[in-house]
Amino acid sequence: MSKKYVYSFGQRKCEGDGSQKMLLGGKGANLAEMMQMKLPVPPGFTISTEVCTHYYQNKKSYPESLTTEVKAAVKQMEEELAETKMKFSDAKNPLLVSVRSGAPVSMPGMMDTVLNLGLNDQSIQGLIEQSKDPRFSYDSYRRFIMMYSDVVLGVNTSFFETALEEKKLDMGVELDTELDVDSLKSLVKTFKSIVLEHTGKVFPEDPWDQLWGAVGAVFGSWKNPRANTYRRINGISEEIGTAVNVQAMVYGNMGDDCATGVAFTRDPSTGEKKFFGEFLINAQGEDVVAGIRTPQPINQESINDSNKDLPTLEKTLPSAYKDLVALYQKLESHYKDMQDIEFTIQKGKLFMLQTRNGKRTAAAAIKIAVDMVNEKLIDKKTAISRVSPSQLDQLLHPRLDPKAKKDIIAKGLPASPGAVSGKIVFDPDVAEKWVKEKNEKVILVRIETSPEDIHGMHVAEGILTARGGMTSHAAVVARGMGKTCVAGCGALKISYEKKTLDVGGKIYQEGEWFTLDGTQGEVIAGKVETVTPELTGSFHELMTWADEVRKLKVRTNADTPTDAKIARKFGAEGIGLCRTEHMFFDPERIEAVRHMILADSTKERENALKKLLPMQRGDFYQLFQEMQGLPVTIRLLDPPLHEFLPHKKEDMASLAKEMDVSLEALQRRTESLHEFNPMLGHRGCRLGVSFPEIYKMQVRAIVEAACELKKKTSAVAEPEIMIPLISDWKELQYIRNYCEEEIKAVFSEMKVEVPYTIGTMIELPRAALTADKITDPTLGNAEFFSFGTNDLTQTTYGLSRDDSASFLGTYVEKKVFPTDPFVSIDTDGVGTLMKIATDHGRKVRGPKLKVGICGEQGGDPKSIHFCHSIGLDYVSCSPFRVPVARLAAAQATLK
Amino acid sequence: MSKKYVYSFGQRKCEGDGSQKMLLGGKGANLAEMMQMKLPVPPGFTISTEVCTHYYQNKKSYPESLTTEVKAAVKQMEEELAETKMKFSDAKNPLLVSVRSGAPVSMPGMMDTVLNLGLNDQSIQGLIEQSKDPRFSYDSYRRFIMMYSDVVLGVNTSFFETALEEKKLDMGVELDTELDVDSLKSLVKTFKSIVLEHTGKVFPEDPWDQLWGAVGAVFGSWKNPRANTYRRINGISEEIGTAVNVQAMVYGNMGDDCATGVAFTRDPSTGEKKFFGEFLINAQGEDVVAGIRTPQPINQESINDSNKDLPTLEKTLPSAYKDLVALYQKLESHYKDMQDIEFTIQKGKLFMLQTRNGKRTAAAAIKIAVDMVNEKLIDKKTAISRVSPSQLDQLLHPRLDPKAKKDIIAKGLPASPGAVSGKIVFDPDVAEKWVKEKNEKVILVRIETSPEDIHGMHVAEGILTARGGMTSHAAVVARGMGKTCVAGCGALKISYEKKTLDVGGKIYQEGEWFTLDGTQGEVIAGKVETVTPELTGSFHELMTWADEVRKLKVRTNADTPTDAKIARKFGAEGIGLCRTEHMFFDPERIEAVRHMILADSTKERENALKKLLPMQRGDFYQLFQEMQGLPVTIRLLDPPLHEFLPHKKEDMASLAKEMDVSLEALQRRTESLHEFNPMLGHRGCRLGVSFPEIYKMQVRAIVEAACELKKKTSAVAEPEIMIPLISDWKELQYIRNYCEEEIKAVFSEMKVEVPYTIGTMIELPRAALTADKITDPTLGNAEFFSFGTNDLTQTTYGLSRDDSASFLGTYVEKKVFPTDPFVSIDTDGVGTLMKIATDHGRKVRGPKLKVGICGEQGGDPKSIHFCHSIGLDYVSCSPFRVPVARLAAAQATLK
Repeated sequence: MSKKYVYSFGQRKCEGDGSQKMLLGGKGANLAEMMQMKLPVPPGFTISTEVCTHYYQNKKSYPESLTTEVKAAVKQMEEELAETKMKFSDAKNPLLVSVRSGAPVSMPGMMDTVLNLGLNDQSIQGLIEQSKDPRFSYDSYRRFIMMYSDVVLGVNTSFFETALEEKKLDMGVELDTELDVDSLKSLVKTFKSIVLEHTGKVFPEDPWDQLWGAVGAVFGSWKNPRANTYRRINGISEEIGTAVNVQAMVYGNMGDDCATGVAFTRDPSTGEKKFFGEFLINAQGEDVVAGIRTPQPINQESINDSNKDLPTLEKTLPSAYKDLVALYQKLESHYKDMQDIEFTIQKGKLFMLQTRNGKRTAAAAIKIAVDMVNEKLIDKKTAISRVSPSQLDQLLHPRLDPKAKKDIIAKGLPASPGAVSGKIVFDPDVAEKWVKEKNEKVILVRIETSPEDIHGMHVAEGILTARGGMTSHAAVVARGMGKTCVAGCGALKISYEKKTLDVGGKIYQEGEWFTLDGTQGEVIAGKVETVTPELTGSFHELMTWADEVRKLKVRTNADTPTDAKIARKFGAEGIGLCRTEHMFFDPERIEAVRHMILADSTKERENALKKLLPMQRGDFYQLFQEMQGLPVTIRLLDPPLHEFLPHKKEDMASLAKEMDVSLEALQRRTESLHEFNPMLGHRGCRLGVSFPEIYKMQVRAIVEAACELKKKTSAVAEPEIMIPLISDWKELQYIRNYCEEEIKAVFSEMKVEVPYTIGTMIELPRAALTADKITDPTLGNAEFFSFGTNDLTQTTYGLSRDDSASFLGTYVEKKVFPTDPFVSIDTDGVGTLMKIATDHGRKVRGPKLKVGICGEQGGDPKSIHFCHSIGLDYVSCSPFRVPVARLAAAQATLK
Repeated sequence: MSKKYVYSFGQRKCEGDGSQKMLLGGKGANLAEMMQMKLPVPPGFTISTEVCTHYYQNKKSYPESLTTEVKAAVKQMEEELAETKMKFSDAKNPLLVSVRSGAPVSMPGMMDTVLNLGLNDQSIQGLIEQSKDPRFSYDSYRRFIMMYSDVVLGVNTSFFETALEEKKLDMGVELDTELDVDSLKSLVKTFKSIVLEHTGKVFPEDPWDQLWGAVGAVFGSWKNPRANTYRRINGISEEIGTAVNVQAMVYGNMGDDCATGVAFTRDPSTGEKKFFGEFLINAQGEDVVAGIRTPQPINQESINDSNKDLPTLEKTLPSAYKDLVALYQKLESHYKDMQDIEFTIQKGKLFMLQTRNGKRTAAAAIKIAVDMVNEKLIDKKTAISRVSPSQLDQLLHPRLDPKAKKDIIAKGLPASPGAVSGKIVFDPDVAEKWVKEKNEKVILVRIETSPEDIHGMHVAEGILTARGGMTSHAAVVARGMGKTCVAGCGALKISYEKKTLDVGGKIYQEGEWFTLDGTQGEVIAGKVETVTPELTGSFHELMTWADEVRKLKVRTNADTPTDAKIARKFGAEGIGLCRTEHMFFDPERIEAVRHMILADSTKERENALKKLLPMQRGDFYQLFQEMQGLPVTIRLLDPPLHEFLPHKKEDMASLAKEMDVSLEALQRRTESLHEFNPMLGHRGCRLGVSFPEIYKMQVRAIVEAACELKKKTSAVAEPEIMIPLISDWKELQYIRNYCEEEIKAVFSEMKVEVPYTIGTMIELPRAALTADKITDPTLGNAEFFSFGTNDLTQTTYGLSRDDSASFLGTYVEKKVFPTDPFVSIDTDGVGTLMKIATDHGRKVRGPKLKVGICGEQGGDPKSIHFCHSIGLDYVSCSPFRVPVARLAAAQATLK
């Protein structure tokens, strides 16, 4: 027997059900499911997604058996409607159909719908006879020609609309509904001549030709540019294909006892449990969304400002409304989720055209999930899986008031979420001055940021850069700070000198108000109101459930007590990464840091470090205090030293003066620190090998702070000292040895001891490949691992995240890479190394080897799933991502 | 029974043999072996290397049983000499001994020898009585004190030498031998008071104390700084330890029927088969090397300019000489290798003190190996393993005349071997001008080189840089060109402006003569004569044998027909890497290249590329012609485009003028190409994804050249098109697709077809980890792999070879890394990835997947062994390394 490609759905024969989304598409499966539930659904059939696959694998041709199967399915549809005696392609009593696409996942951008298919110059007469309504019939006919010509024949709708407008002008009427039969009749002619003019062919008269044309258009639209774009953005595979649904028409436009509408079983924006929807009397589906007439509320609860004077469905067609209510309740308890339904009332009788899980805001998603648990509709685990972690992220940040108008002047990368307004400034010093002295809100606009800009970023509301990717300095730091950031906005031409911003020829001056939407990547001129979401009881309830389920711990990347506090409030279970160098950029410290870097001898360097010691100790003390009872992973100095030196000539001059050396000497020293590839240069543990005194100072500061805390408050800090950029176990052994000596010295000086561990970041392929030796107690002796996936991705791909923005766009466009590899863990490459390292490490040290991740990807849901799958102990992410990670970790367990 | 630590060697009881080098050290094993051969060797015993290990693992203490064992061994030695009735520590008839160190591998830098141990103020009388020679006795005594004080007690020899000189002055004599008994007697006293003065202790009188002191000194010297340095440089493990040899003294200084000497069984500098040696009458061992008296030739064949007036041993002591000849022949046929022997003649009787495989020059090594095969002493395989591949490298390059004087002013890295002289210039343009216009020989001196310097490097005799490591640009390019290079010579302070070179305060001007020894890394002021070695018949014979044995093919990295020709002469079996970008730097091409880079549109870029096409085609044509019948792997454009742009302001200005754009616009464009980490930036296949037109031009040039060759000469080229820097199979698929289209177009235009393959470099960890997908015919479809171990090492370690020089020194010093990881393949990390990739690739495509290596390490013997072990098909190296690689590949098979 040959393969089956067509599935009927009807009251008598229904060949599919709701579980067959991959085969029948979402729409087809739901129609079959509703049919199985014996709901009033017009009969029809679904051409499966396998036909789409066949179509593209065979030079856009169909399987041989398809014609026969479609014919049989049409016949079956006619049988379902036997009492009406309608037949497809019958001139006397024509069965008209709708043709709709329906992929396994919702896919905007494809061909959507053709209604009233089957009409032609003969069958229009039949329709008039059957409906006794010539106006309705001709209105259906002209709608059909318009839709079909647009989506199947590719004739732009505007031609038809113009003709329609002209006709209304001719007739002196305003609304489509006011056109009489003759006008509609002549419009049908005009429309057909438009088709002939633009396609060179007459409009197809044969209903079968019409049907096959529409089917072909659906399959053809699967790979149209808009659909491709949508799939690319949403990571949907091209392989899944779309199905085609052919369904008997029912009419909402047969008179005033007819209507069409959409409804949600709960409020999709708040999640409140109320039935909510809109409808139009005497209309077909597309009229509701077209916005020509204001839709009416279906009930009291659906009344709003714009529809408050219109009668509700409950009042207008009370019996149909009653049926609708019974039906929505049946649907919700069947699907156990909030439904988005489409219905049509034909001559007072209710028909269901579609049901699907309704889209909802993050707030609604949470409320509905929690409510449904309380209503015992679903269990907690289902509730957890109902909320998407990335949606949650929006909820944690302010967003633009959805009602406000916005003048979007450019789009960049959505580098760090949230929405903020402020005056634009181009210099971090100016930013600081304006904020501190004038109490202004500012947005720092830079070509790209560097560690020298930190103080400006710190005071700014948001950060906007012209260059750099999702993991550029600006993006990473902004996310860490929980600040809104739009990065890599190529349309900006920034002049630091003139203090202006040129966007497509329009010049903006320093001080002008801008608004950034970091969730969307939008740059908006002017000030736009924002709304701050509140974390509801439902949110906390859902989070508690997630915590009960998840196996992965969630820590935070935090460098300051403030960050630590926020993160702890959001549920962080420790610090997974404290970047000590961020403590070095404070203006009063940077001087000592620079003295340290420019020291000519170990002695001189030690003197400069002595000045830094009490400051670092103070930082750690506060951090330990904030995080007491929880582990705090502190990474020793990582960036190359030249990052701490000034680059501008005037700053160099002032530093030279301050240090009492010649500018030339200073420049020479700076130059000697210059590197071709600083990312692969003298940084990380390499600094610890070259200048043990730096790490010794840092370790001393950590342990002194912990000892002090214990003495003063008897609270116990849990420092985990993390050595960055290890490539070989010997580096770790060398550094561990002198660190332990220093720690012993502190213990004996302070006469108190605290627990501590020493471990390493795994951020180089070689570290992953030799993780057994790195963990081995007799060799590297790492007591814990933390994957630094930013660097690991860079070295595994040989790809600089600072430089890749310039060509990754092309890569994604040409489909060479599906997305920027820095966003989610690349499981094939980076993930393989992570797995090798984890297995190696655990083989040597057993399951007690603590393994985590502290790269940017630690807050990415997809990556969290992967981390769970290879058995990590924890993920660490920026404070604002902590709830996202908690939820994603729970979902990973449930998957 | 407790472990055995002491092994006697004597005619009656000999407990070791020559195979026990690890246990007894080289010297001890050879003494035992000679004893087993019944050669006249003074008896003694060896304290094994295990004692050394025990010593360092147990706070410098000995195993408990050692005292007893040593006593027993001394007793055994006395029994061996029963007829003499000598006893150790006997005042009347003292048995004196020598104490020598002896590690499993030859180890300069350790304590060497103490002779005459056992003498004190009592036994000296016994010695006089027995020898009837007071002068000899006192001379032995003062020698013993001097040596012992130096090496065991740490008293500087100079104090004793001063006293000796003073005594000779006092006595009005010139030679030591002229001092009379009383003088020697008083010297002994003086020597002892020197010891007391400098150590605060009296010189040990008890022979047992003396013995244990000497043994302790040997073990102590195992970890002295000189020995540590030697081990580090030569990659010898500290774990192996040293043995101590205690042996009965025989005396070459008991009168004129006594002598001591050294000999080689063949000429160590030419390899000629002639017995060759020197001796001194009435002398002890150290006198021969001390150079106080001119040593005499042992026979006619050993006569040279300085000793031609001295009588030979053959004449002076004919019977002993006859014994020596018999003995050397016996030794050589026993050891089947050229021997370096030490002998002593006491009262006309010959004793052997040592034999070992003699050190020899590369030329001698080859000749001896080949001769011995012809003499049927050894087989071909043994001959192959007798020549060290790195020695061979010297043989292929000119070297400094060993007799010439040289004023070494600085040392750098031996970046590319050979020895050359030339006038120093600091600018590649000047270099070109001087060579072309004035026919001068120049040495190009640069702080570091960049691709812009290529034309200057090309004409220079040698290259000298102040910065950069063994794999810096200068080093890599120089090796590729076969040019001498000393790199990373930190002592040089170069002023481009003043055109001077400052070395430790001494200023050298442009135009002064310098000589570089690239094999040693020496920078020499002035002109030093060089000698060009000739490749002998033995060399070719040995190479042929190597070729019969080896499994790995050897290709060359060559960018020009000249390189290709040299390499083919040296036996290259194809080109493993032709870097197409090197063809771009030619002055007449760089202009088109720059137009291409600065093009605003694809169209403009294509126009510039059209100019390059015929030039590249011409290059390939010549290359194919040179290499016909052999495969030629051509890598498409790899470096980031900004490498081709000028950096100097004046060059920018002239380019702007030439291109008819403003300097500002040009600068802006150049800046926009700037990258933070160009190594991880927009290069390699990423260029091919962004600008397909570039690779299309290159592929067209390659295939057109091959087609043209076929048409004109019917010779078949075997181009292998190599795509660099692949990280994912999709990159390769994308590029392969358009390359194949282009190739098809060429075939149809030219109406001829040629064979070709398309493959990839594996130079990123991700490529190695996903090599299965990269090779899979339905995915990446790579037909061959070539490991780019330079980049692979960089990314695996996260280490830039351009920047690492600044800290790798510290790493090696602190023993964190044993050596620069760019020199030999790091088997733990990089090697693991290579193995993964090879296994992955072969699993998908079977053994026919061609896998090679084309990084710098392809010419490194250690790395070649590794490549053999994981089953690569070929290695590729610079032309001058080809013979080295052939030999190393053969040795890998034999190992």
